Amino acid sequence: MSLSPDFASTLRAIFGDALALDVATRATYAYDNSRRETLPEAVVLPTEHAQVEALVRACRAQRMPLTARGRGTNTTGASVPVAGGVVVSFERMNRILRVDPDNRLAVVEPGVLNADLQAAAAPHGFFWPPDPTSAPFCTIGGNLACNAGGPRAVKYGATRDNVLALRAVAGSGESFRAGAPTTKGATGYDLTRLLLGSEGTLALITEATLKLVPKPSALRTLRAAYADVGAAARAVARIMAQPVTPCALEFLDDEALKLARAHGGDAVPDAGALLMIEVDGEPGTLAAAVEAVACAARGDGLLELRAAADAAEAATLWAARRALSPALRTLSPNKINEDVVVPVSRVPELVATTKRLAAKYALPIVCFGHAGNGNLHVNLLPRDAAERARAEPCLAEVFDAVIALDGTLSGEHGIGLAKRAFMPRALDAVALGLMGGIKAAFDPDGILNPGKLLP
Amino acid sequence: MSLSPDFASTLRAIFGDALALDVATRATYAYDNSRRETLPEAVVLPTEHAQVEALVRACRAQRMPLTARGRGTNTTGASVPVAGGVVVSFERMNRILRVDPDNRLAVVEPGVLNADLQAAAAPHGFFWPPDPTSAPFCTIGGNLACNAGGPRAVKYGATRDNVLALRAVAGSGESFRAGAPTTKGATGYDLTRLLLGSEGTLALITEATLKLVPKPSALRTLRAAYADVGAAARAVARIMAQPVTPCALEFLDDEALKLARAHGGDAVPDAGALLMIEVDGEPGTLAAAVEAVACAARGDGLLELRAAADAAEAATLWAARRALSPALRTLSPNKINEDVVVPVSRVPELVATTKRLAAKYALPIVCFGHAGNGNLHVNLLPRDAAERARAEPCLAEVFDAVIALDGTLSGEHGIGLAKRAFMPRALDAVALGLMGGIKAAFDPDGILNPGKLLP
Repeated sequence: MSLSPDFASTLRAIFGDALALDVATRATYAYDNSRRETLPEAVVLPTEHAQVEALVRACRAQRMPLTARGRGTNTTGASVPVAGGVVVSFERMNRILRVDPDNRLAVVEPGVLNADLQAAAAPHGFFWPPDPTSAPFCTIGGNLACNAGGPRAVKYGATRDNVLALRAVAGSGESFRAGAPTTKGATGYDLTRLLLGSEGTLALITEATLKLVPKPSALRTLRAAYADVGAAARAVARIMAQPVTPCALEFLDDEALKLARAHGGDAVPDAGALLMIEVDGEPGTLAAAVEAVACAARGDGLLELRAAADAAEAATLWAARRALSPALRTLSPNKINEDVVVPVSRVPELVATTKRLAAKYALPIVCFGHAGNGNLHVNLLPRDAAERARAEPCLAEVFDAVIALDGTLSGEHGIGLAKRAFMPRALDAVALGLMGGIKAAFDPDGILNPGKLLP
Repeated sequence: MSLSPDFASTLRAIFGDALALDVATRATYAYDNSRRETLPEAVVLPTEHAQVEALVRACRAQRMPLTARGRGTNTTGASVPVAGGVVVSFERMNRILRVDPDNRLAVVEPGVLNADLQAAAAPHGFFWPPDPTSAPFCTIGGNLACNAGGPRAVKYGATRDNVLALRAVAGSGESFRAGAPTTKGATGYDLTRLLLGSEGTLALITEATLKLVPKPSALRTLRAAYADVGAAARAVARIMAQPVTPCALEFLDDEALKLARAHGGDAVPDAGALLMIEVDGEPGTLAAAVEAVACAARGDGLLELRAAADAAEAATLWAARRALSPALRTLSPNKINEDVVVPVSRVPELVATTKRLAAKYALPIVCFGHAGNGNLHVNLLPRDAAERARAEPCLAEVFDAVIALDGTLSGEHGIGLAKRAFMPRALDAVALGLMGGIKAAFDPDGILNPGKLLP
């Protein structure tokens, strides 16, 4: 679809200089962290709600595809404008409108960076729970669109658990508000949570009221090394079955540890599996909480349990996890990072399955991630064209195994383009049909982020 | 609408003896705790999912109204079959299918009583957070339908925060599953939360996977009496702005205390407002947590702060709250109990407004409830026909004041019949239109609980 001069004039009237039609600028908004790419016909940079409403109305009148974008950190292609049309980047709607500690909330525009919100909330003693690795450079709007998580989700929940209210423009071009700035609400259908994780396919969010959580004043880091993956997984179940929930419970399998040791050296323990655990609390309560978690971490197959005495030692303990990302990049520039979820007790079976599939397809697979949520990052690491070709059927088997283990396709990355074809494996036809009906109610002409999420 | 012999035969074929057509039985299912009443044409008591699916299909074919029911404890008329037709009571689908501590979840049928689930989870060291006052005799299905809360919601969330997955039959007659038995998920639109709080207007839930939470092993009760409502409300804000969140933070205004003293005697403190506070935790951590909350409770206007040394003293401290319900019933058999919510910082303004309206309409109004969520039960207490007539415009002004304070109509009771006419005050026309579109996608012929929730 190409832009008519009339439509370009309409956009110019709404956006003035905040409209880009030149190829160089459009190319900047053509891709995201999925490394997929489609050039949009135009890029617009709104600074206020009214512009967004005018934009959606103009696009709807022309049946013009419209794809929303934060900072393009997502890994599923959800912000790639595969159908062309207009990209709306929210980077200039980046005001923190209010931090309200009495009501434990903040009101923000979608272009605010996650880290900037955390910095604004911290002086009041609060934080916003979602903490994706990309926090310094991803936007709240992107977090909302993908239902982003991170390590802290095990204790504090993901995005959907931490949003109170939204202002948005539906694909129909109509503006509305959902939710209320209160922590309880039973007033009609939950439109707020419906928009969260909908990847810009239902409405464009222009303002969000976020739930803030008091920031515990102290944090302790523990590292537990196990003889094998099963021992670590059983420790995860024990930790999650006692009352003190850690604020991070991260897992690395043997392959991940081997890779990390190759890059990070002896600072990375030589073990069959590793748990990185963080416990937060107040000075008066933390020691007892740490001991409760440590007690649960102990058991058959534990090789070593270390608690960091201070921040410097905590940084040392995290060496294995830190060394892993560059190691993965070096091994394979075409890493396929899936963020499947299974019930916590099924993590050992999932890891065993990936090992079997790694052997069957002669393909390196590394598992690590948020074990307390059963949310593992299964990384397929094809090193050449032949391995890349084998990765595709292997990935399909990974997803089938996850579904068979009562799990689901994505814990925190979303569906986007990457997992769209697999949706009928995870959801029944009726549920998908209902989602299609909801899409039609919000976006009757299908202009918002076409080609994403729903198969 | 009356039941044709053919349709009665269809129901008989599905339900056998679990179909009631006699007036005496139908009358038992004609009303709920709202004290509204409409006789249904038939009552059915399914024991399995397949019957529910067959029922919805049969009703849809006849455009027959179908109203789901737990135990009828709801206060809004949501389970009154105002359009006649069929009532489906889930009281016989009352099996706890699984308690799974490793994955912190339980799988239940909708007719399980809240208290029975708590009893089943307790030996594993877990509980399910929603704790409405009716817990011993309300069903999980009713909790799901109304997004029920209770005092614990201030720390542990309401129903919508504590459900992982659902099985249901949409108004179309089609069965589907939503969500997954995992604590994270970003696989398409959140149909689970959409059904929660939808009051049986979208689908009938036949199975729910609930999030269980580790039960802290110790609990301390505190009672703080203040000179006036403003002082208590400021203490609530201080308590909620520090990191230790109490597991109950209940408020009674001066009128509530006067009534409670009239019934409960000197065990009820003579004060301008009262906070009942509970703090839970582990033996090693609880003392410090209690001290943190007590410290925040102290401030201008505090008259007395008492911490219970044991369970017996805790029961004494709760005397005021316990005396209140019978006192309210005695004063007015026609009590109108609204459960409005405002941001915590606006609670003093809400209480001041109710006092102004009580004077304007010469009508007793008593406020108490879940202050930590800003969820106040505003009780209008008309004692005769004249006061009952004045209660209606007074209630409308209460709702308008709540909306003006950035609050919403209901925190945990829902909309049902009682607040349906007020929905356009709380939600904009576009949001209501989107809800209507969602309703049409799930229930194209409008057979599920007609006349409820949406105006």
